[in-house]
Amino acid sequence: MTLDLNPPSPVSPAVDFDADGKQHGALRLPWSRDDSAWGAIHIPICVVRNGDGPTALFFGGNHGDEYEGPIALYDLARLLKPEDITGRVIIVPALNYPAFRAAKRTSPIDGGNMNRIFPGRPDGGITEKIADFVTRGLLPLADVVLDIHSGGKTLDFVPFAAAHFLADKEQQARCMAAAEAFGAPFAVRMREIDAAGMLDTSAEALGKTFVTTELAGGGTATPETAAIARHGVRNLLKHAGILDGVPERQETRWLTMEEAGTFAASPADGLVDYALALGDEVRRGEPVARIIPHGSTGAAPVTVTAPGDGLLIGRHFPGLVQTGDCVAVVGSLDD
Amino acid sequence: MTLDLNPPSPVSPAVDFDADGKQHGALRLPWSRDDSAWGAIHIPICVVRNGDGPTALFFGGNHGDEYEGPIALYDLARLLKPEDITGRVIIVPALNYPAFRAAKRTSPIDGGNMNRIFPGRPDGGITEKIADFVTRGLLPLADVVLDIHSGGKTLDFVPFAAAHFLADKEQQARCMAAAEAFGAPFAVRMREIDAAGMLDTSAEALGKTFVTTELAGGGTATPETAAIARHGVRNLLKHAGILDGVPERQETRWLTMEEAGTFAASPADGLVDYALALGDEVRRGEPVARIIPHGSTGAAPVTVTAPGDGLLIGRHFPGLVQTGDCVAVVGSLDD
Amino acid sequence: MTLDLNPPSPVSPAVDFDADGKQHGALRLPWSRDDSAWGAIHIPICVVRNGDGPTALFFGGNHGDEYEGPIALYDLARLLKPEDITGRVIIVPALNYPAFRAAKRTSPIDGGNMNRIFPGRPDGGITEKIADFVTRGLLPLADVVLDIHSGGKTLDFVPFAAAHFLADKEQQARCMAAAEAFGAPFAVRMREIDAAGMLDTSAEALGKTFVTTELAGGGTATPETAAIARHGVRNLLKHAGILDGVPERQETRWLTMEEAGTFAASPADGLVDYALALGDEVRRGEPVARIIPHGSTGAAPVTVTAPGDGLLIGRHFPGLVQTGDCVAVVGSLDD
Amino acid sequence: MTLDLNPPSPVSPAVDFDADGKQHGALRLPWSRDDSAWGAIHIPICVVRNGDGPTALFFGGNHGDEYEGPIALYDLARLLKPEDITGRVIIVPALNYPAFRAAKRTSPIDGGNMNRIFPGRPDGGITEKIADFVTRGLLPLADVVLDIHSGGKTLDFVPFAAAHFLADKEQQARCMAAAEAFGAPFAVRMREIDAAGMLDTSAEALGKTFVTTELAGGGTATPETAAIARHGVRNLLKHAGILDGVPERQETRWLTMEEAGTFAASPADGLVDYALALGDEVRRGEPVARIIPHGSTGAAPVTVTAPGDGLLIGRHFPGLVQTGDCVAVVGSLDD
Amino acid sequence: MTLDLNPPSPVSPAVDFDADGKQHGALRLPWSRDDSAWGAIHIPICVVRNGDGPTALFFGGNHGDEYEGPIALYDLARLLKPEDITGRVIIVPALNYPAFRAAKRTSPIDGGNMNRIFPGRPDGGITEKIADFVTRGLLPLADVVLDIHSGGKTLDFVPFAAAHFLADKEQQARCMAAAEAFGAPFAVRMREIDAAGMLDTSAEALGKTFVTTELAGGGTATPETAAIARHGVRNLLKHAGILDGVPERQETRWLTMEEAGTFAASPADGLVDYALALGDEVRRGEPVARIIPHGSTGAAPVTVTAPGDGLLIGRHFPGLVQTGDCVAVVGSLDD
Amino acid sequence: MTLDLNPPSPVSPAVDFDADGKQHGALRLPWSRDDSAWGAIHIPICVVRNGDGPTALFFGGNHGDEYEGPIALYDLARLLKPEDITGRVIIVPALNYPAFRAAKRTSPIDGGNMNRIFPGRPDGGITEKIADFVTRGLLPLADVVLDIHSGGKTLDFVPFAAAHFLADKEQQARCMAAAEAFGAPFAVRMREIDAAGMLDTSAEALGKTFVTTELAGGGTATPETAAIARHGVRNLLKHAGILDGVPERQETRWLTMEEAGTFAASPADGLVDYALALGDEVRRGEPVARIIPHGSTGAAPVTVTAPGDGLLIGRHFPGLVQTGDCVAVVGSLDD
Repeated sequence: MTLDLNPPSPVSPAVDFDADGKQHGALRLPWSRDDSAWGAIHIPICVVRNGDGPTALFFGGNHGDEYEGPIALYDLARLLKPEDITGRVIIVPALNYPAFRAAKRTSPIDGGNMNRIFPGRPDGGITEKIADFVTRGLLPLADVVLDIHSGGKTLDFVPFAAAHFLADKEQQARCMAAAEAFGAPFAVRMREIDAAGMLDTSAEALGKTFVTTELAGGGTATPETAAIARHGVRNLLKHAGILDGVPERQETRWLTMEEAGTFAASPADGLVDYALALGDEVRRGEPVARIIPHGSTGAAPVTVTAPGDGLLIGRHFPGLVQTGDCVAVVGSLDD
Repeated sequence: MTLDLNPPSPVSPAVDFDADGKQHGALRLPWSRDDSAWGAIHIPICVVRNGDGPTALFFGGNHGDEYEGPIALYDLARLLKPEDITGRVIIVPALNYPAFRAAKRTSPIDGGNMNRIFPGRPDGGITEKIADFVTRGLLPLADVVLDIHSGGKTLDFVPFAAAHFLADKEQQARCMAAAEAFGAPFAVRMREIDAAGMLDTSAEALGKTFVTTELAGGGTATPETAAIARHGVRNLLKHAGILDGVPERQETRWLTMEEAGTFAASPADGLVDYALALGDEVRRGEPVARIIPHGSTGAAPVTVTAPGDGLLIGRHFPGLVQTGDCVAVVGSLDD
Repeated sequence: MTLDLNPPSPVSPAVDFDADGKQHGALRLPWSRDDSAWGAIHIPICVVRNGDGPTALFFGGNHGDEYEGPIALYDLARLLKPEDITGRVIIVPALNYPAFRAAKRTSPIDGGNMNRIFPGRPDGGITEKIADFVTRGLLPLADVVLDIHSGGKTLDFVPFAAAHFLADKEQQARCMAAAEAFGAPFAVRMREIDAAGMLDTSAEALGKTFVTTELAGGGTATPETAAIARHGVRNLLKHAGILDGVPERQETRWLTMEEAGTFAASPADGLVDYALALGDEVRRGEPVARIIPHGSTGAAPVTVTAPGDGLLIGRHFPGLVQTGDCVAVVGSLDD
Repeated sequence: MTLDLNPPSPVSPAVDFDADGKQHGALRLPWSRDDSAWGAIHIPICVVRNGDGPTALFFGGNHGDEYEGPIALYDLARLLKPEDITGRVIIVPALNYPAFRAAKRTSPIDGGNMNRIFPGRPDGGITEKIADFVTRGLLPLADVVLDIHSGGKTLDFVPFAAAHFLADKEQQARCMAAAEAFGAPFAVRMREIDAAGMLDTSAEALGKTFVTTELAGGGTATPETAAIARHGVRNLLKHAGILDGVPERQETRWLTMEEAGTFAASPADGLVDYALALGDEVRRGEPVARIIPHGSTGAAPVTVTAPGDGLLIGRHFPGLVQTGDCVAVVGSLDD
Repeated sequence: MTLDLNPPSPVSPAVDFDADGKQHGALRLPWSRDDSAWGAIHIPICVVRNGDGPTALFFGGNHGDEYEGPIALYDLARLLKPEDITGRVIIVPALNYPAFRAAKRTSPIDGGNMNRIFPGRPDGGITEKIADFVTRGLLPLADVVLDIHSGGKTLDFVPFAAAHFLADKEQQARCMAAAEAFGAPFAVRMREIDAAGMLDTSAEALGKTFVTTELAGGGTATPETAAIARHGVRNLLKHAGILDGVPERQETRWLTMEEAGTFAASPADGLVDYALALGDEVRRGEPVARIIPHGSTGAAPVTVTAPGDGLLIGRHFPGLVQTGDCVAVVGSLDD
Repeated sequence: MTLDLNPPSPVSPAVDFDADGKQHGALRLPWSRDDSAWGAIHIPICVVRNGDGPTALFFGGNHGDEYEGPIALYDLARLLKPEDITGRVIIVPALNYPAFRAAKRTSPIDGGNMNRIFPGRPDGGITEKIADFVTRGLLPLADVVLDIHSGGKTLDFVPFAAAHFLADKEQQARCMAAAEAFGAPFAVRMREIDAAGMLDTSAEALGKTFVTTELAGGGTATPETAAIARHGVRNLLKHAGILDGVPERQETRWLTMEEAGTFAASPADGLVDYALALGDEVRRGEPVARIIPHGSTGAAPVTVTAPGDGLLIGRHFPGLVQTGDCVAVVGSLDD
């Protein structure tokens, strides 16, 4: 099946978005390369539909090294029954599939960081072509859009769903409500410093109810973090009226991330030794971590301090850090 | 200073092992390469000595992507005062320093896995040369030897110190006592399936009191796991009589790892979804994890079951798994 | 010599296109790189001219791993005598010369697939700069343009010359006649699904008589397939009135390639086992090949069936295949 | 199951060689690496047994880019029924499985060329460990050993089975008879110039009836060449008395390969243009191919001539050739 | 501090360009990558200011393998005292800092050749983003701009400062005077063949007094060449009235580089054997170097001759040369 | 022709060492690899012979990035006439030919540093096989052996010939006389710290008159340094009585290199700024160079001081230096 896009997209979906029932298919994208002149990428996609009703569009694997989304969405695609829903659920569990297969944040084909090249281009690189198809082919079909992120191999977060401060306050309220409905331990109001290139921005520009997440990280998933994602996707379907019932809710704490007072970067290369754990309270100027020089023993560490008051909600994950790496993310607590 | 080894080692230590006080130096190993014909590797080493007494020899960074050891040992080297000790402490916080700098388990120079090539060779590859110097130059100086491991980027463990079942029961008792004195939440009695090539084996063959550890993993460290290592090294110095005082002890649970019933491998490539968390109890045959095929949605996962009764003490860390990767390590609990 | 292009091209031809006689020269393109700050690429070119008359422009090596074209064209450049022709022959035997030297389909410099980036850009990457010079510098000089392709390392075809369905039916007729004159065992009428970026399209847009080919493949040439190319280039010169005589013709079978019913992709990764040989007749739905899973013995193969009726005219060449790779190309036979 | 080898092999077979029926299993070899600290390689193996009788041991994928062997042997493993045989068939369809997965002649892990490192070492590299297990664990179980080779990506041959000139003339007669029974279009008597390191040599040293093959090449398989392998393995089972019936035989031509007069190497780098096809007759000194310099048009090719009288039975496959590459293999015909 | 650019630049300078005194800071550029999702590049920058007066803007490391600039500018930044100057000096000693750290001409991140992508783009690759910030953020602040180049790893030059022939003759005179004031042994009037993409062009387009240099090369620096750079930067500050005093001058010889008669390229691959040393006089057609084929002994070398009359002012540095590499640069002497 | 070695060498020389006249041939070494299963390396060799007399054996390219040797020896091989000599000259201008083609110190095939793996092994890696053939096949043929080295890409030296302190004082005197006869500006008496693995040691062990050199460096050659090599090889042939005449001698200064007081290593990573030029006199403890940290401006450099009294005869060449790299080589002057 080909969507009627103009200009045409090189991506052709092997599913029918208008058919009732459940389909397991692929987004097919030609990819000529040295080891297969007429090769292609097949991105898994599942469409579940039962008559008229709202459409939810769920993405995992926007970055290829984040796993709560794919775990929850492969499961949802396998287990969700058409008869249990009203409307439509479109599931793309591993959006940047080449990156996902390579267990990398970005595409091994063209280095593309999927969440920095939206809205994409139909005649660009492989990653831009995928983004373009999402922008013009999938987003217009949806009412509610969820993009499940985690920290990936190099960042770690307390688990949260988030929505952005938006110019359209009605849309903002919809998004904030949906983020809360997701039901993660934390919910975050975000002001994006540089929103250019994000899937978020493309979805929001179309007026969609959009939710993003950061669910732990390190390039792995635990039973606990995968459960947050599994509950979250069903909670959101209930919130949207696609599944019956009300979202199962644990207690959610609201935080805010503004530009100032949020991020602290490493001033040096070295071995990072954290003084605080994720979720710890901290006040501006207090030590978060020390950077230990390792070229010889006996050298003095450099201290990184908190850029604001609040909770330590994000940190650098690997044991070594380089100058300029983000060491601390502090979210401010509501009073 | 050159140790009087026969055959000579290409490694020359820039410290005097017999001098009182504290020295920050290096093990220097010539390394001719395309980008520096007459280059060398400098492995940091610290020697702290105060008169006669026992010698403790502490290693971190045997594998280059394990961080609790380096954090604790760079700190110890910086903070330990000669006047506080009786005897000698030799600290090598990042033994496979090329691997440590590259944040890799193995050496980027020759692919050498340091803990699989002991006792090493003076005329072998770079990693073998380092191992040989440890075997012939450092181990003979020591009474107590500690090699701090964690899971690294691809494995994760409950934090434990361990000692091996040994033919010499007196030595075994010394090692078990030292492992317990380290004071991690768990202590493990291990029967190594294939002990060839390990630093452990070379140290034990010389009759030394030897302790190894696995302290979490994933290629990072947390305040909690770094604290275990920091307390552990001081506990061990107290246990050895080098520092005054008695080891600070938290409650330690003893486990046993034998060959049978301990390890479960993945039968397939896929996305791994754990049913159990580290530290959970499990019985043989119960599900530990599912391997989700990701080529298309809708395919059935494959279940990996526990190989024995006990606690899940180790797991695969990354979100993707390959056929043959170790998915579960089960330690049996003492009655 | 510099062609007077506006904007200027960085490519400067070291031949005079207007001089009588034979010149062996180069297209010189500056290429600053880490191992030669002021380096350049020299693409071999030969110009043979004898007074006024039509101009033929012959390309080989558009893809760097296809060899019938280079073999025939290096030979033609060496052997063709000015006194034997009327008009002009411009020969570029290895157009993507960096790819040709590297024995790769695409450029090792910028990954450029020459036949997907026409018309090129004078300020783009290396491959785009070459395409731009062809578009603006060489194509306008020509009456008849031939671009000799083969399957390369990853595809294999029955040997054919081809022309496209074009909006201008007079031009289409010229092209079809020239394709037949080439004298390969097969001739193909093609409807290109996605013609953007091809040399073909740039040549056709200028109204040129354009012929392309696919002459076997696998990244090699045999005496038989090289002979088809050698005869083909002389046949085309005769057809164009540049060489005396009439094309030597073997019996040519006409086939048609439309979008539908032509291509079959692999639904799985595996070892490919063909049931049919190139040139075999097949009907829609009949098995063409089986994809054998190789992770363990005993697993069931997946069958790929013919997408239409006709001859198997193209296939995947390497023994292993990936999901999405083109496994079968079926050309329909004229009644 | 662990074979009782001394010294022990790190390879453990997950099949029981003594059980009746058919088992699909693996040879498991631990492989610690940066992306899986406790990983392993699983080499597929199939054992089919029906009571007492001779044992045939069949290998494919000794080199990872040769496909007739794997195609025939995955098929045989899937289709062979225990009740159809008397004795035992052990099938390893992709012996150098890491190389096979990577579609390379040699191992991507350690560069090991499997057929140059026999008898292997239990404490060597990955490829040496596999070879050692074959030598000490599998070869002793067999009566008849077949190692199916093709030319791989860089060589091409007329299809033949072969046996070596051996000191033990009774063994040589057994091997020659088995080679003929295989039923390929050609059969070759070979004097190996340098037999060190080959699986052949290890098998022959144990007195086994050993057959090797070269069945076309280029890194692909055709229906024709796969059929030769499929018939060959069943013919050999019949010849050995494991399957009922007599080998199906096409007419086989015998050739001889000695050291002198067999091989011709390229004296230059360039584009290779063959004057002869595989199977063509040739006399010593006649042109086999020309090497065309490609740096500029107009340069004179260099001719490679036949090193002896006979048939051209092997050639270089890729379109480009380097100085020293084998361009021609000539087999002498029996009078 | 953020400069008020529109569109905004992703580069944020951690210095205040308007503050008196000396600041050592960085230009911070976010760089999301697989090994640090929220990483950044910190390009060192130093601002020294003392009240009102002219601004000098000095760059080193435009190409990452050229060392006289960085040596002189790290020194200047460390040693220059605010109280010694009138006005402002902005020092960027290693502009393409990723390339500088990698000791490469171009960026290891995106292959960017800094001096070929000006004026850059705020939404381009990493190197384009840096260029854009220079163009819009730094150049407008300056009166005098100096970009210190050397030959890098692959070229070598006699030491010279240079200015371009410009349409604005007053500006040209200013630039020529500044080039002479730099005080290198040679000064060159240059007509750039292709000025597109150079920092030079962006600075000149803003009417700045611009000087560039080539100070030896080979990817190293000597006491002599570093001294030329050290004196040059202070001479230029004196010439601009920022430092007191007059430039220290050695005798400077003026040369001219036009397009024609200046460059000679290698017609072949091989070992290069120079007949002339840098600075030697030569006449058009005389031998400069021989290219020795090395595939076998006994082959005849190819001679490269001088393209014009003058001095040999530049040469290829490495011992091997490829077809198209620049072998000789000849500057014409003033009468 | 095959030398009668036991065990046999895989290297076969395509020259006859006993024939009069001049032969340009190759040492042929089979090299099976992924891109040519039956490939080979051809190392150029030239043999010039005129009746009985002494044999000189000259090597260049022992390290692949040193060019004075290859320039002088390709020239000698091309120009030397059999009738001008008495005896035999064997010339191998690029011994580690794979490294030479790759412009690298060590072999791109196996990383082999040719001058660290003598005497080699016939069944080792490619580089070991070449070394073994030199040891057993070539050295025994010679009376005088010359191995021409330069500093290569990463070191630079004043030009000198050298001979070792040897246990056999008669041999030492022969070697010292030959080193002086070479006629470079400097001559050096060397005590090798670690002579294991060098060609020198293998030649000296056979009692040969052996000379080595270091002639400048940086991975290039100048007319001046190439001239030293060209004169040197002819001087040595005269000294040996193979060419008529007496060595042309410039004034040679004798230096001594012992283990102590000769080498200074860098204590840090950084940008290296030399205070002294090659050939400058220096006294122990005086500054030779400063290592400038480049992470930010304003940091203090680290000074490297001379390890002894004498001349600076060697230095690190590239602009960046790493901890442990050799920064200074000081040779002591004879009184």
